[in-house]
Amino acid sequence: MANEKIPYKIYLSEEELPKQWYNVRADMKKKPAPMLNPGTGKPVTFEDLAPVFCDELVKQELNETDPYIDIPEEIQSFYRMYRPAPLVRAYCLEKALGTPAKIYYKFEGNNTSGSHKLNSAIAQAYYAKKQGLKGVTTETGAGQWGTALSMACSYFGLDCRVYMVKVSYEQKPFRREVMRTYGASVTPSPSMTTEIGKKILAEFPDTNGSLGCAISEAVEAATTNEGYRYVLGSVLSQVLLHQSVIGLETMAAMDKYGIKPDVIIGCAGGGSNLGGLISPFMGRKLRGEDDYQFIAVEPASCPSLTRGVYAYDFCDTGKVCPLQKMYTLGSGFMPSPNHAGGLRYHGMSAVLSELYDQGLMEARSAEQTSVFEAAQKFARIEGILPAPESSHAIKVAIDEALKCKETGEEKTILFGLTGTGYFDMYAYAAYNDGTMTDYIPTDEELQRSFETLPKVEG
Amino acid sequence: MANEKIPYKIYLSEEELPKQWYNVRADMKKKPAPMLNPGTGKPVTFEDLAPVFCDELVKQELNETDPYIDIPEEIQSFYRMYRPAPLVRAYCLEKALGTPAKIYYKFEGNNTSGSHKLNSAIAQAYYAKKQGLKGVTTETGAGQWGTALSMACSYFGLDCRVYMVKVSYEQKPFRREVMRTYGASVTPSPSMTTEIGKKILAEFPDTNGSLGCAISEAVEAATTNEGYRYVLGSVLSQVLLHQSVIGLETMAAMDKYGIKPDVIIGCAGGGSNLGGLISPFMGRKLRGEDDYQFIAVEPASCPSLTRGVYAYDFCDTGKVCPLQKMYTLGSGFMPSPNHAGGLRYHGMSAVLSELYDQGLMEARSAEQTSVFEAAQKFARIEGILPAPESSHAIKVAIDEALKCKETGEEKTILFGLTGTGYFDMYAYAAYNDGTMTDYIPTDEELQRSFETLPKVEG
Repeated sequence: MANEKIPYKIYLSEEELPKQWYNVRADMKKKPAPMLNPGTGKPVTFEDLAPVFCDELVKQELNETDPYIDIPEEIQSFYRMYRPAPLVRAYCLEKALGTPAKIYYKFEGNNTSGSHKLNSAIAQAYYAKKQGLKGVTTETGAGQWGTALSMACSYFGLDCRVYMVKVSYEQKPFRREVMRTYGASVTPSPSMTTEIGKKILAEFPDTNGSLGCAISEAVEAATTNEGYRYVLGSVLSQVLLHQSVIGLETMAAMDKYGIKPDVIIGCAGGGSNLGGLISPFMGRKLRGEDDYQFIAVEPASCPSLTRGVYAYDFCDTGKVCPLQKMYTLGSGFMPSPNHAGGLRYHGMSAVLSELYDQGLMEARSAEQTSVFEAAQKFARIEGILPAPESSHAIKVAIDEALKCKETGEEKTILFGLTGTGYFDMYAYAAYNDGTMTDYIPTDEELQRSFETLPKVEG
Repeated sequence: MANEKIPYKIYLSEEELPKQWYNVRADMKKKPAPMLNPGTGKPVTFEDLAPVFCDELVKQELNETDPYIDIPEEIQSFYRMYRPAPLVRAYCLEKALGTPAKIYYKFEGNNTSGSHKLNSAIAQAYYAKKQGLKGVTTETGAGQWGTALSMACSYFGLDCRVYMVKVSYEQKPFRREVMRTYGASVTPSPSMTTEIGKKILAEFPDTNGSLGCAISEAVEAATTNEGYRYVLGSVLSQVLLHQSVIGLETMAAMDKYGIKPDVIIGCAGGGSNLGGLISPFMGRKLRGEDDYQFIAVEPASCPSLTRGVYAYDFCDTGKVCPLQKMYTLGSGFMPSPNHAGGLRYHGMSAVLSELYDQGLMEARSAEQTSVFEAAQKFARIEGILPAPESSHAIKVAIDEALKCKETGEEKTILFGLTGTGYFDMYAYAAYNDGTMTDYIPTDEELQRSFETLPKVEG
């Protein structure tokens, strides 16, 4: 179909949907550093992780060699309920910008969770069910992951316990209600339901909570309740594996129409969307089959790639999880309270961190008012109200398209539109009212935060 | 492609999208009664309506003879940004119900307005722009129509002034922010910006507002501001015309796969979705080409078809609009404050009213707790969190499927899933908390409301 007129939206047929996930680690010559057991300081084993995660997911987490892993039929069935996600040609945006660039975005927001998170949630719920577990525990910040997991658990009849960062619990009652509608129990974190929660509340009774703290509570709840395991929506290599369905679909759609992206842009918090989108393209680059420019976009207020250090760090505030080598701001880092745009985790996926460290990927940061400016522009031109997270990628895609306008280059720009902003209207209201502010941590603040790093050679 | 395996979702290609709307009035032997000029009591003319509505839309409103009307290329372009809407085979729901019925739904919620309303909003905005107007005014209740119109106006660079029923303005701040993000001005109604608003506020200072009142304000604002016209999201025949795109796409998708629906179900407030979905099928029935069972589903708390009278009535509280012959509860009817599920207009589209009166369509009413029960079940099984409005159709579709389970009939059931419930979480919370109640108006209440009907022979 090469050179055929490109439609506004490319939907693959169900037969064209991926039947295997792609594991980019298999094509990396230098692999990501192994997770370390925080007690022994040695690389984690299956036995270390199995009390926390489902068995099959531990195997996926530790699997650095198999490039393709079959997607179980039950998960493919679920995917067919909301996938394929469309690959959209942004004709209207191109016209509005007056750019010779061709802009495409992969839109993952057409499902009730409102984001790509469902791709991994259903996989993790499936393996938990297969293992005969009663339920799973997790944390959620903005609520996208918690919503996705509650949908997935409802589908398989699993109990779902969500620890929601307290400030989000209070500010996003609607997200909470969606989770409850899907039968999940939602607890504001820190809570009195766990030892670590009690300890944090004793020390900081007025805390708003944080993702790191909610992770600690969810892990404790999983390991102290019979028949439960912990699941996580980003950062982990297993999550990037599941999210590769984004990139695989995108690549299949582009190949079908003979389109080759020059630049591939994704927003980056823990890395689940970016990793999923770029993995198969990165595989081609690693195998020397093709070349692309990859750009990770993160908030200037939580700049792990652009201003963090590449070191072993704790994944959670309670320091119960394995240590991971990653670009990090230190597990003690807390984004400024004025930060509305998600992507607030202190570290970055080990896979993406290693790719970035090898110079295979670039990173940029964006300030939040400029991100919302791009979001509003996009909404008005392309019709879709984007999630603040996704809007980081929009911002840089527009920047790149405007550069093409200056240089006359007809680049093909691809970005990931991870989700919709329907539950982020407080942040949009602040932007509409002109009360939104930016915040960039000072070097001194980051230096203090780096001091929370553990002393590990890696 | 008949007898091929039916995919979970059928997406037409862009070439297969409708290029003309279908006007069901052309195939009706007995036409809907004409609108009457409230001053003269005579059928309205182009000249009567042109000060209120855009010229081209008046022509469409009065056009009872042309079965097909071309969709302008600019509107087709916009449609391609969010259409085709998928026709979904509810495999999971069928399995969960254990029914031999085959269930399909046309899903109109995959766009930022969250509903089918965008189909007519973009058409009305286009004709306003083409006429060289500065902007349009409208009312909105739950906010779906206002959101759709703000998106459409933003696309064409038109000013958009929305009068939002006061109680919704206060209870749905997020809807309001979406409209503001698209550049619309949103005024709680009744307001001090119009004469009719001032009058209503003087009489009822504590009123929560109503759709009828907001319509009066929007019409006044349109007719007293140079370069403005009024637009309406339901009830009118022009709206049904634009919404026929729903039914045309559905019919094309079904024909492509050799599927014939036996029962077609839609929720009904003013009738925009139901009319759009059934129009082309009704056309076949009217022309004797095929037969279908049509079921309109309305809230038991606002039962215009099932308990109203077929008579000329005012369309708005301020009595400035033309009179329309329709099934109505009387323009003084106010749904109980506990009613959360939308579909709260006192009357029904003249086209649908006439079809119903001729016995070509059935109607049922549903109580709201049973509607939310169906909504929750559907969300958990099919993954999509439905709008309360749409859930009226879900409720009856499930009822019909369960009847098939009893009788063993393998009926093909089609219903319209008009939108998503992301902005209706207060109502879902009430259902989740068990505090939602039902309300059915008594015969005495309806009798009092019928007394607000004008004395017109029709």
